[in-house]
Amino acid sequence: MDLLKERICRDGIVKDDHVLRVDSFLNHQVDVTLLSEIGKELRRRFDGEGINKILTIEASGIGIACIVAQSFDDCPVVFAKKNKTANIDDSFYSTRIESFTHGRVYDVMLSKEYLNPEDRVLIVDDFLANGCALMGLTEIIEEAGATFVGAGIVIEKGFQPGGDNLRAKGYRVESLAIIDKMDPVNGITFRE
Amino acid sequence: MDLLKERICRDGIVKDDHVLRVDSFLNHQVDVTLLSEIGKELRRRFDGEGINKILTIEASGIGIACIVAQSFDDCPVVFAKKNKTANIDDSFYSTRIESFTHGRVYDVMLSKEYLNPEDRVLIVDDFLANGCALMGLTEIIEEAGATFVGAGIVIEKGFQPGGDNLRAKGYRVESLAIIDKMDPVNGITFRE
Repeated sequence: MDLLKERICRDGIVKDDHVLRVDSFLNHQVDVTLLSEIGKELRRRFDGEGINKILTIEASGIGIACIVAQSFDDCPVVFAKKNKTANIDDSFYSTRIESFTHGRVYDVMLSKEYLNPEDRVLIVDDFLANGCALMGLTEIIEEAGATFVGAGIVIEKGFQPGGDNLRAKGYRVESLAIIDKMDPVNGITFRE
Repeated sequence: MDLLKERICRDGIVKDDHVLRVDSFLNHQVDVTLLSEIGKELRRRFDGEGINKILTIEASGIGIACIVAQSFDDCPVVFAKKNKTANIDDSFYSTRIESFTHGRVYDVMLSKEYLNPEDRVLIVDDFLANGCALMGLTEIIEEAGATFVGAGIVIEKGFQPGGDNLRAKGYRVESLAIIDKMDPVNGITFRE
């Protein structure tokens, strides 16, 4: 998605060869016009797949998911919550996720009410790096008996194994920008 | 806003006289069609105010803010982040907020880059109860030299002091549904 790649090159800040800041338009300040374009592109890629639920994880995925849902006939969004206390009763699905960004492990929870066998689910998130968040969400979808249609990711760090591991398992992962390498001097190389 | 009040009555769950669950359409599963209507209503109420930035706080405010921004000419959204570590450098505004929902105190932070003197800010959030989150955000707006135009709240717990305290200070607070009292037996009484 050229519009996105141009935006990343213009406004993204490569802090080092693993950290890209896109705070100015994606996950602190948010450009909702860009999110609408992201929604249209994901609809184009997943058209005809019968997606009727968008799943994401708090916090920065929520805004993206809500606007993407508008391109999928205003279908419901559900966001998994990060739980600090782990006092999860049996009305919740839960899974443990290791965050690359925050360098820690946390539990995420999702009420059983909001994911059902008739759901055809698109997972949406801002970043895909080691894939732990995405794997955790697919486990919840499976436990609910719902169908995981695929993942729509804004930025994939192609030099980390998450995306390739998920594709090797047969999952459909559509990343709108895949970064193969980056550093502060030479900038960003996108995958063709 | 009748559509919202009807939805609260239909799908909200009054757990006790202080806790209302709206998980099925507002802050766990999200109805994006309802959010669009909320955006239109807030635009109607704040039309002509020159709002050019929407400010909220993670997590459940983010989706609401992003869709509300579409009714304000796709203006940028900024969300304050809840910080666990409090290692905030001088490139961030920060404030301490006491959460009614979570029963704890946390620091929130907002990059100085994304709030400026030319900003005319609408704060958007799902709930207003004791008003601490809102007060914290107004302090950040003031520190940035920006203009706090008002707050657009989905549900105000009118039996808690936040909304009335803020209005007594001269702030404009537009809550789309104000609950004056509620309990599991008699249900919800909205303010006229």
